[in-house]
Order: sequence, then structure tokens, then C-alpha cells
Amino acid sequence: MRLTPKVKKILSYYESDNPGTKANLARLLMHGHLAGTGRMIILPVDQGFEHGPRAFIANPSAFEPHYHYDMAIDAGLAAYAAPLGWLEAGADTFAGMIPTILKVNSSNSLYSKDNPPNQAVTASIHDALRLGCSAIGFTIYPGSDASLDMFEEIRDLAAEAKACGLAVIIWSYPRGALSKAGETAIDVVAYGAHMAALLGAHIIKVKLPSAHLENEEAKKQYTHHKIKIDTLADRVRHIVQSCFDGRRLVIFSGGEAKDVKSIFEDAKAIVDGGGNGLIIGRNSFQRPREEAMEMLDGLTHIFKEQK
Amino acid sequence: MRLTPKVKKILSYYESDNPGTKANLARLLMHGHLAGTGRMIILPVDQGFEHGPRAFIANPSAFEPHYHYDMAIDAGLAAYAAPLGWLEAGADTFAGMIPTILKVNSSNSLYSKDNPPNQAVTASIHDALRLGCSAIGFTIYPGSDASLDMFEEIRDLAAEAKACGLAVIIWSYPRGALSKAGETAIDVVAYGAHMAALLGAHIIKVKLPSAHLENEEAKKQYTHHKIKIDTLADRVRHIVQSCFDGRRLVIFSGGEAKDVKSIFEDAKAIVDGGGNGLIIGRNSFQRPREEAMEMLDGLTHIFKEQK
Amino acid sequence: MRLTPKVKKILSYYESDNPGTKANLARLLMHGHLAGTGRMIILPVDQGFEHGPRAFIANPSAFEPHYHYDMAIDAGLAAYAAPLGWLEAGADTFAGMIPTILKVNSSNSLYSKDNPPNQAVTASIHDALRLGCSAIGFTIYPGSDASLDMFEEIRDLAAEAKACGLAVIIWSYPRGALSKAGETAIDVVAYGAHMAALLGAHIIKVKLPSAHLENEEAKKQYTHHKIKIDTLADRVRHIVQSCFDGRRLVIFSGGEAKDVKSIFEDAKAIVDGGGNGLIIGRNSFQRPREEAMEMLDGLTHIFKEQK
Amino acid sequence: MRLTPKVKKILSYYESDNPGTKANLARLLMHGHLAGTGRMIILPVDQGFEHGPRAFIANPSAFEPHYHYDMAIDAGLAAYAAPLGWLEAGADTFAGMIPTILKVNSSNSLYSKDNPPNQAVTASIHDALRLGCSAIGFTIYPGSDASLDMFEEIRDLAAEAKACGLAVIIWSYPRGALSKAGETAIDVVAYGAHMAALLGAHIIKVKLPSAHLENEEAKKQYTHHKIKIDTLADRVRHIVQSCFDGRRLVIFSGGEAKDVKSIFEDAKAIVDGGGNGLIIGRNSFQRPREEAMEMLDGLTHIFKEQK
Amino acid sequence: MRLTPKVKKILSYYESDNPGTKANLARLLMHGHLAGTGRMIILPVDQGFEHGPRAFIANPSAFEPHYHYDMAIDAGLAAYAAPLGWLEAGADTFAGMIPTILKVNSSNSLYSKDNPPNQAVTASIHDALRLGCSAIGFTIYPGSDASLDMFEEIRDLAAEAKACGLAVIIWSYPRGALSKAGETAIDVVAYGAHMAALLGAHIIKVKLPSAHLENEEAKKQYTHHKIKIDTLADRVRHIVQSCFDGRRLVIFSGGEAKDVKSIFEDAKAIVDGGGNGLIIGRNSFQRPREEAMEMLDGLTHIFKEQK
Repeated sequence: MRLTPKVKKILSYYESDNPGTKANLARLLMHGHLAGTGRMIILPVDQGFEHGPRAFIANPSAFEPHYHYDMAIDAGLAAYAAPLGWLEAGADTFAGMIPTILKVNSSNSLYSKDNPPNQAVTASIHDALRLGCSAIGFTIYPGSDASLDMFEEIRDLAAEAKACGLAVIIWSYPRGALSKAGETAIDVVAYGAHMAALLGAHIIKVKLPSAHLENEEAKKQYTHHKIKIDTLADRVRHIVQSCFDGRRLVIFSGGEAKDVKSIFEDAKAIVDGGGNGLIIGRNSFQRPREEAMEMLDGLTHIFKEQK
Repeated sequence: MRLTPKVKKILSYYESDNPGTKANLARLLMHGHLAGTGRMIILPVDQGFEHGPRAFIANPSAFEPHYHYDMAIDAGLAAYAAPLGWLEAGADTFAGMIPTILKVNSSNSLYSKDNPPNQAVTASIHDALRLGCSAIGFTIYPGSDASLDMFEEIRDLAAEAKACGLAVIIWSYPRGALSKAGETAIDVVAYGAHMAALLGAHIIKVKLPSAHLENEEAKKQYTHHKIKIDTLADRVRHIVQSCFDGRRLVIFSGGEAKDVKSIFEDAKAIVDGGGNGLIIGRNSFQRPREEAMEMLDGLTHIFKEQK
Repeated sequence: MRLTPKVKKILSYYESDNPGTKANLARLLMHGHLAGTGRMIILPVDQGFEHGPRAFIANPSAFEPHYHYDMAIDAGLAAYAAPLGWLEAGADTFAGMIPTILKVNSSNSLYSKDNPPNQAVTASIHDALRLGCSAIGFTIYPGSDASLDMFEEIRDLAAEAKACGLAVIIWSYPRGALSKAGETAIDVVAYGAHMAALLGAHIIKVKLPSAHLENEEAKKQYTHHKIKIDTLADRVRHIVQSCFDGRRLVIFSGGEAKDVKSIFEDAKAIVDGGGNGLIIGRNSFQRPREEAMEMLDGLTHIFKEQK
Repeated sequence: MRLTPKVKKILSYYESDNPGTKANLARLLMHGHLAGTGRMIILPVDQGFEHGPRAFIANPSAFEPHYHYDMAIDAGLAAYAAPLGWLEAGADTFAGMIPTILKVNSSNSLYSKDNPPNQAVTASIHDALRLGCSAIGFTIYPGSDASLDMFEEIRDLAAEAKACGLAVIIWSYPRGALSKAGETAIDVVAYGAHMAALLGAHIIKVKLPSAHLENEEAKKQYTHHKIKIDTLADRVRHIVQSCFDGRRLVIFSGGEAKDVKSIFEDAKAIVDGGGNGLIIGRNSFQRPREEAMEMLDGLTHIFKEQK
Repeated sequence: MRLTPKVKKILSYYESDNPGTKANLARLLMHGHLAGTGRMIILPVDQGFEHGPRAFIANPSAFEPHYHYDMAIDAGLAAYAAPLGWLEAGADTFAGMIPTILKVNSSNSLYSKDNPPNQAVTASIHDALRLGCSAIGFTIYPGSDASLDMFEEIRDLAAEAKACGLAVIIWSYPRGALSKAGETAIDVVAYGAHMAALLGAHIIKVKLPSAHLENEEAKKQYTHHKIKIDTLADRVRHIVQSCFDGRRLVIFSGGEAKDVKSIFEDAKAIVDGGGNGLIIGRNSFQRPREEAMEMLDGLTHIFKEQK
């Protein structure tokens, strides 16, 4: 199997990484219906940890761990991401069928909001190897009083992952010393994405940013230099620029359940802005399977055909 | 000894585990009067750590550590669970007579309630091996400010246990940022059970849930989707569903001492809802031996005969 | 499950061992048709390593690894012993169905006879744990120029096995600085068995001894003190005496394929002499299954009914 | 990507392995033109270590390490196997394009024949991970006075490889206490293959056996039981049987350079006998590229179309 | 290449360091246009972590990580300093072209100001080695409630760095229990610099100090002893004196973006006061490249020609 020039180009950006890590990045980029395009759709199912099993009530088939592996494979997605127990429950049945990402830290909403936003480290690099994963996923909360600890956790895990030839994906979700609007403000999302890149992430996952500017100093700069942030595509472009000017893969989270039309609009904006794809959980598994497959098919076409 | 089809099926769900861990799960499922049924009754005696030896005053024979081994064996239970010292005091006398579970963390009620709910890790995997245990038991308190630390402790212990062929049982007891009623609310118990499964538990132990819904967002979902939680059997069924749709064993704690009739009703509801059994301490050892044996016998019949 | 007084008595002899090791010894002694009698029949299949797959030509079903697990279970034997790969090929399918013994060193007959008799260490204690084994098996060749190294290997492996709650079985086969007849001479077999016990074996496996006396000094002693070694039962009795006067389990190997009648005679002599059983490979799997089952059934009756 | 039923079946034989190792076995079985058939052609280039760079003189393009990666990919082979430096010289350029096998021990022909046949361990499991390999390859020389040491080396390396989710391939080449004809005698090759399986190999590589019988005892058995070893296909069938009756993959080495017609005949015999494929080095890279590609194409057709 | 007498002299001050560390110090002192002069200009780009990617808005070329390597090399600077991800993105392309300094801890401005000033440790000594760096950079905040922790972090990192032959640069920025003016007060900067030297720094980086005296006791002493602190050169001289009387290299940070003229004046004062150079980030990369190059050229001339 030859890599496409597009994928070769992307791999060349990861110039300090060993061939093992590059092979795993290649696996993510050469799998499923978007193989070779440099774009990817990933199915993440960490909502059970984050919000509890009520996440599966809207579509009870989703209580069953094989359901998600199955849908990700049938939809031709690039990868499936989940916490330890969820992967353990299907890793043997689906071995070799789709790249997997072990989410190695996990938040939960029973944990008091009086604490600084934080996650528990719930899996190890050795777990990722024995389960045959291609990458680890780790969430940071820039802005949280626990953020420095989180940065130090991912430093250690990323170093070990890279030495073992795994790829590292950072979910960067600013929160804590921020207004609610600030959490998705373009300056803040750009900052969170940049920090993830500086921490050594191969792939950066952020929320789609709004046009809000949180930081006063940033507001001055953006205004003075007339940075284009009016359309979603503009904002995606600025995030891509903030991730080493396109030298790191950036994917966007689908967010809360919403209608298909607006998801497709998001996808088009990601394509227009040069983003690398979508990591879309709730909008996939909280729909009946047929609807979800149709939606994922639609997304695949958008990511495949445009540009 | 051939495993029953039921037990074979259950073992097949633990698809990422090594044969050593499966053999220990088989030991738990093929021992005692319920051998082969996929159901189990376990005797836990960690009340001494949790509430002090006053737990044994109602039935002074229970001060003697051999008493519990003895009763568990005579009653044909699946296993006996206790903290380090309690097992050390009988492990030789009763070696080979009943599967044992080393409770590797322990709470105590002298520890100030001003601290976030927490337990001390009081035993190791090596202890479990040298004492001939089949599994370790570990309590998590989702909702506690100490919960992230507890998750990280069990991550490490579970990884080591699994590598050594032991099974992992998580006691999941939400508390901390919750109302008293919330600790046994159906949405909260389901959430706690799901987290235990995601942390990699083979067997999940929770309290029998009430019909209360603690979380506002959950309440909306349960109501909107008309989730049946009216009867105890309905609620057990929802917990089983929340544990990977039946791919993980779930057992329920007997709770505080109560009359035999209501214990039997609980057991019937567990059977009706598809739960895998009962872990019943105080109601066993705080009764005179004869009464306890009669009760355990009654429970065995319920678990054996129904469905 | 209560241990029988016989098994309780035997376990009491292993007074320095931890409860984990005793539980595994109990497992061997409480499994299969001879459970509780203090006697056992074990199926060993290490002939493939020792003589090559031609060992299976007489009964081609035996080329398949599940065949042996299956027969051992159906025949109600105490345990199944084999090298690493052979156990790996069935440990999951038969998890929890029969105690297994991992043979951790292996000889082979391609290795030049010009070298001192020796075996390679081909598995680890960690392998035994992950495969759910109850014991490790290790061969020593007292008399070989490599024997001191072998003693030191089993010293290390036994220490680790015991710390992890596993039992240790030593196959003691004197050879090297001995005549062919000397290898099974009563004084030599007794010496080899005693060394195995001194090295810390829980169970000692030797060949059935002949009345030959190899060592001149020994011959004088045996003659002078009128040691009874005329009948096989006498010799078995002397071996049992040499293994801490009955405080260690001793089992005898079946040796080369022979007729059923003489195997039964051997078994009766073992019973008469107070030996603990038979470890019988070639005579089991080199016969068609039905014949083998009949023979094992016959042996079981001999071990069960006599005395 | 769904696995074919054939590949699913093969993976089910590796029942003690973790999902990581199974995913890597799946990678080998689902790559290239023979993906999904359960058969594979592997390109090994360890001749440079074994015989020196003169191995490349017949086709000087082969001096360049990228040449081999390139040919293996273009020919749609299952994998490419080579020693450390040879893989290091191309692992980045070809990352993600073809499964690779790190040969972790290496022989050389400058080493005096007065020594027992042996190889140096020349790479580690960590090397395999950082280079993105799917498996390690290791040669044993059953019959050599160094064989016990080699067995102990692969025991350690295989345990570590399996824990890290890698597959293990053993090259089993009996030599040492054997006649030249004996090295490829059917009884000896079967024995070597069986030992590799017992040592825990996932894939076993042997030479195509002759009808010669080396061992006197074996000769009696084979003759007495009328084992069919007349045709090459018969002999392949016996080797497959000797590898756990088909529960382990067996591939055959192409051997010295020879004409294409006889290579094709070998391949047909492998197919007829139920072997899993060919590992063909010298016959691939000692021909001009075009000729080699044509030959590999021919082999692919034979493995794909027959039966 | 011979070292100049000046550089030889400087190296002689590091008398407890191993030759590896000295070789790396020599690399910094013998590279670029100022090679051999004992002075250096370093380009640091850690503003992305500290203030977010908005730092690059004024000069969008600076979003691209290669831009900085490139400019540092073209300007003939002594070294380039940056956090992990930023170096990883160019370390291969520019390997061997310029000494690099891995900034191993990082601050960020999303972290609440309610916390004591602190930084996360975001890279390791192993990272520095694998990326081919000559030194590590570490920030301390003397005066912060987190300062003791920071001192202990650099103690560990410095010890490991020195053992591996790397040089250690400490950025010493007093803050916390200080007035805003106090952060650059001459007594405070001198104190911070001295602590860095005492912590084992080879090179100390501080801000250019003001004539303000923060500490009352210090003020008395400075006044009483008529310490000259009127001109910037005087104050630089006092800092150099505070760094072991010139036995440790001291470099000054350029601070916020300002006009070229005042930068040149700063540089002249550094030369006059005996400082060893400038570490100038924002003033380099927030200008268009041509302007920046001109400025760096000007600085080089000042450091080269004077004295």
C-alpha cells in the first residue's frame, strides 16, 4: 500500500518522530473511506464516563460496547476512541479491523464543580500496546487550576507513548478561569490548540470556536491586525494556523446532539478552513443506527469531495 | 469439570483477559451451590474496618475470623471477601476450600467526615497471590473530591492484577457531591456502575437503587424516553444494561441489617432484572449462625430456581 | 467444599508454605475422580519437545493440542502438564476446567548426547500466572555435569513460584555419571528423589526404581541393614521414605508405552508402597482415545479402591 | 475493514494472546495481494548478515536498502523482514506501507564453524516498537550445542514481545548434531517446527523437507504407521500437522536461488499440503527486479487461486 | 577548531562540570557571528505558551515553526530556545545547524492569577537528548509561593542534565510577594540571579534591572555602601558581580517589543557592564523578517566591536 502524496506530506511534518509513531499516524490517515485524503472522521465514545450511561438512553443499542466498534467500521471511519473498559470489551472481536485510540484520562460529572476542572488518568501506555491501539488520547483543561498537573501528566505519557511508536492526540478544552463564552472564544481555542501542539501532540482536538474574543489584550491584537474571524471557516483557518501553521493535524469535536444540516455546515466550514476532520460522538451514537450511518456517509462525502 | 454453557458465555465477554484471569472468574462462577448458574452469593466482611468491631456485637461468634470462612463454606457461597488481616487469620486453615477476594482498600469511620470520602489502600497484589485469592476488591467513591485519586489507584492495581491472572471487583459507591437520597438514585447508581466497568472491572458491586433521580438532566432524559424504573426489577435491569448491556457481571450489596422477607424480595428482583447476585455481609454475620444459614439457604434457592 | 482429612493431613506437611501455594496443592488434590484421596493421576505431554511430534504418530488425534486437555478432563485426572506453547494453544478454551502445570524447562533429543544432559528453561513464573496454572514443573538431572546449574535454576524459579502462591513439581531423573541400569537403580532414584525434596519441591516425580544398586557404598548399607527392595511396592515404599518419610508427595512416571496389564501392576505397587500416584503421558496419548480412557478409568479404580 | 472468515478462524487459534498481538497477526494476514486468504508471501533480507554483501552482487540494485521495501510493496507481499540496520535505513520512508518484521538475531559466516551454530541477538523489542514493526523474527538451531541458550533467548524476547502486542516468528533450522541430509529430513524438520510451536511462536518458518528420515527410531515409526511422505505436498501436510494440527501458521523458506519453474512447483505443493505460504529472499532479490516481480506475481496467483 | 582564550577562560570557571557539559557550553560560545567573544545572542520563542499564538499575529510568518530556526541561523545567533513541540517541529530539518535549548518548563496566561506564579514541567532531559539540544532552560519565580517547588524541580532536572553532559540555563524572574516595580528592582534582580547561580545554573537569564530598591534592609546597605546603580551599565555590572563575580555567564532578556534604538542602548549597557549578551524573542519575531535581521545584525556589531 502506497501512501498518497497528501499523507506523505503530512507525515513529513512529524520530523522528530520515530517510524513507529509515523506508521501509526499513517494507519489513521490511510484507513476507511477518507483514506489518503488527509482528512478523518473519528468516533469517540467517552460520554459514558463524562455524563453517565444516560448518554445511551436515546439509542439503547449504544449500551452494548460492540455497537460502536461495529458502526465505526461500517461507516468507514478513520478510528474509534474510548476509555479502557469500553475497549477491553471489544478489542479481541474487532482486532485488526479499525485503528483504536485509548482515552487515557477521563472526566466525570459526579465530581464536584467546586474542584478545579480535572480528569483522572485511567489507563496506561502498556494498556494501549496490549489492546493494539494506534494512539492515546488525553484531555487538558488550560485555564484550570489543575492544568499544570495535567500538562505534566501528558508530558510523561506522551514521552512513553512516542518511545513505543504510538501517536498522541490531545483534546484541548480551556475552562476554569474563563467565562462560559470564553471557553469557545476564538482567541482561547487558538491558545488551547497551540499549547497542545507545544506539549507535543500529533493531533489536536478542539471545539469549533465562536467569534467571541475573551482576552482584552487579544481583542486589541485581533482587531488591530484585522484577523478574519467572521465566518466559521475563517476561525477554523486561524486554529490551523495556530497549530504550527498546518504542521499539526487539527480535528474538531461535534459537540452536543444537533440536526444533521448544521453538522454538515460545520463540516463544510472545517473543509474550507483547512481543518483535518471531525471527531463526532454524541451525534453518531445518540441517533438510531440508520440515521447515524446516513449522517456519517454525508460527512464522508463532504470531506472527500470538497477541494 | 466442564463449565456450563452459561458460564462459558459469561467468560467469552472478558475477551481481552488472559486465561489466568478467566480461570479465576470461572472459579467464582463454578463454586458452591450456585455453581454454573451465572449467579453468585458472596460473603463480605469488611464491616470491622468500616464501622469497628461493634459490627460483631450482635453475634459475638463473628469476632472470630474462622467463623466467616466457615459459614461461607457451609452455606455453599461463591466466595468470601475480606481485608488483609482477616484473610491472613484463616487463609491457611481454609486453603482450597472457597475462592477468596482480598479487599485491597478500606474505609474507616474514625476518619473525619470533614475529609472527602476516601479509603486507604491496605493490601497489594502480591498479598492476594500469597494468600491464594481469586480476585481483588476495591471501592471507589464517584462524587468524592478524592475520587480521581481512587480511580488512579485502581488503574494501577487492576493492571497488575490482570497481568497476574487475578479478577478485579469494584465496589462503586457514589458519595460526596450528592444528596443522601442521591447516593442510591437510579441515575447515580447506574453512572457509578458504568464508571466501574469503564475502569476495567470484571465484576461490579453496587447498592440496590431507588427510583429517585438525582441529576436534573438525567431526570429529563429518563422521563422523556420513558425508562422503566418503577419496580426494583426494572431498576436492576437498567443497571445491568449500564454495565455494558450484560457483558459485565453485576452484583448487589445487601445493605444494612433487615428482615429476611425483604431480603428475599430484593433477591427476586435481582433475578427478575437479570442481575448476577448478592454480596451480603451484615445480614449474614449479624444474625445467629443458624438463622443466617437459613437465610442464605433461602437466597440460594431463589437464585437457583427462578428463570 | 471441605477438604478431606487425608488432604488436610497432606497440606499440613507443607508447613512453611503460604496459603496460596497450599490452595494450589489443594486444587491438585481435590480435582477429578481421585479428589480427596491423596492420590492423583496427571497427564503430562512433553514428549513433543523430548522426542518430537513422532510421539503423536501412533494416535494422530494427539497432534491437536485440545485433544489432551479434553482427555484429561473427561478422564477426571488431577491435572494436565505441558510446555508453554502447548498450554497457550488451549488455556483459554479450557480455563477453569482442570488444574494445569507449566513445564518450565524442556529437553530435546536433537541436542547432542556429547553434551552433559541438560534442558532449556522455556517458560517463566509470569507465564504460569497469566495462563492460570497451579504449579510449575521442572526437570533436574542429578549426575549430569550440568546438574549444579539446573539446581540453581530451580532454586530461583521455585522461590519466585512460591512467593506467587504456585506449587513446585520436580521431575528428578538421574543421568550422566551413571550406568544405564544405574539411572533407575533404587539407591539412585531414592537419592534423586531426596535431592528434589531438599531443593524445595512440593511434589516429586521419579521413575519406578529397579532392584539394582548402583553405588558400592550404598550396596553395602542396603545389604547390611537388610533394606527391603525385592518387590516394586517395597521400592516405592523406600522412595516415599526418602521423600521426608511421606511428608512430600511422590508420583511415578509411566515410562514407555506398554501393555495395560503391566501398567495396572505398577499402579497397584504404587498404592501398596504408599506412593501418591502416576504421571502417565505416552501410555495415555499413544493409544486410541477409547483405549486410553479405559486404561485411565482402570487406574482410577485401582487408586481409589485399594486401601 | 472486516476480516475474512478464514482470518477470523486463524486468529481464534491464538487464544492466549492479547488483542494487540492479534491485531498485528491480522495486519500480516490482511495485507497485500493475498489479504484474507490465510496465505502469505514474505520477503526476508537477512542474507547480508548471513553471507555478506556478496549476496547482492548478482543484482547490484539490491545493495540499496530501499530496493527491498519497494519491491515487497509493489509485489503486494504480506511483509518484509530484515535485521536492525537494514530496517532503520528505510523505516521512515516506508512507514505505514507494509508490515515489517525485525529479525532480532543474526548469524554470520565469518564466525568459525568450529563453534556450535549460533546467532547473536542483534535487536530488541524496543527497536521493534520504535521502528513500527508488527513482529519479531528469531532463528533457533535445534541440534546445535548452543540450542538451549537460543531457546532461553527467545523465551525472554517472546514474553516481552507478546506483552507489547507484537507477533513472534521463529525460523527453525535444525543443525549441529545432524548429517547434512538430516537438516532437511522430514522427521527433523517436523521436530524443529514442533519445538518452535512449543516455544510459543505464532508463525513457524522451516525449510521444505525431503523424504529422508534421519532418526532411526523415527524411521521405524514413520514406516510402521505408513506416514505419507512421498510427495512434497505430503511432507508439507505432515509439517502442518506437527504445528499443532494447523493451529499455528507455517511458512516455508524458498532456499537457494533456483529456476522459477521449480519455485512454482514448491508453491503448489505448499498449497496442496495446507501450508500458509512462502518466505522467499534470495530467489527474489538475486534476480533482476522485473524477473523477480514476475516470479512473485506468479506465486501470488498460485497461492490465491488454488483450492 | 581551537577555542579562543576568552572561551577557554570562561569554561575554566565551570570547574566541577564534566567535559560533556563543557563541550556544550563551548558549542554555545563558539557558534555564530559572536563565536569566541564570550558574548551571545539567543533567540527564545516561548511566547506561544506564555501568551498564546496571538504573539505571532503581528508577523504571521512566525506561526510557522521553521521560521524561527531559519532566522536564528541566518542571523548567526548563538542558539535557539523553545518548548518541546516547537523544537520537535524543526529539529530534524535543522539538525546540526544551530545549538538548541529545550525550555523544559512553561507558563501560560490562562492559568488563574489567583494561584501562585508557577510553570508546568513540559519536557524531560531525555527529550533534550533525543532532540540534540545543548542545554535546557528552566524558569524560576523567586518570591512565588510555588518557588520552593520550582527550586526542587530544577535541582532534579539540572542534576540529570549535568550527568548527561547538557548545560543548564535558568530564567530567574522574581514575582509573587513583590510590588510590580519590585520585580525588576536592582536588589531583587541581583538576588534572583544569585539564587539561580546557587542552584547550579551555567547561564543565568534575568531582566534588565531598574534603579528601584525594593527591600528596606537592602536599600540601607546599597545606600550606606554607595553601590553604583545609577546607569544601566552600573546595574548590569552589579548583576554580573552577583553571579559569582563573573564566574557565571549572565544574559539579559529583551522584554516587550520596543524600538530598535532603545534595544541598541540596552545592548551597549550590557557590554559596558560586562554582561554576556541578550536573549531576545518578541523583538525579533514580532517584526517583519527583514527588520528583525537588520536589528540582530546591529546587535551583533555592538557585541562584537565594543571592548
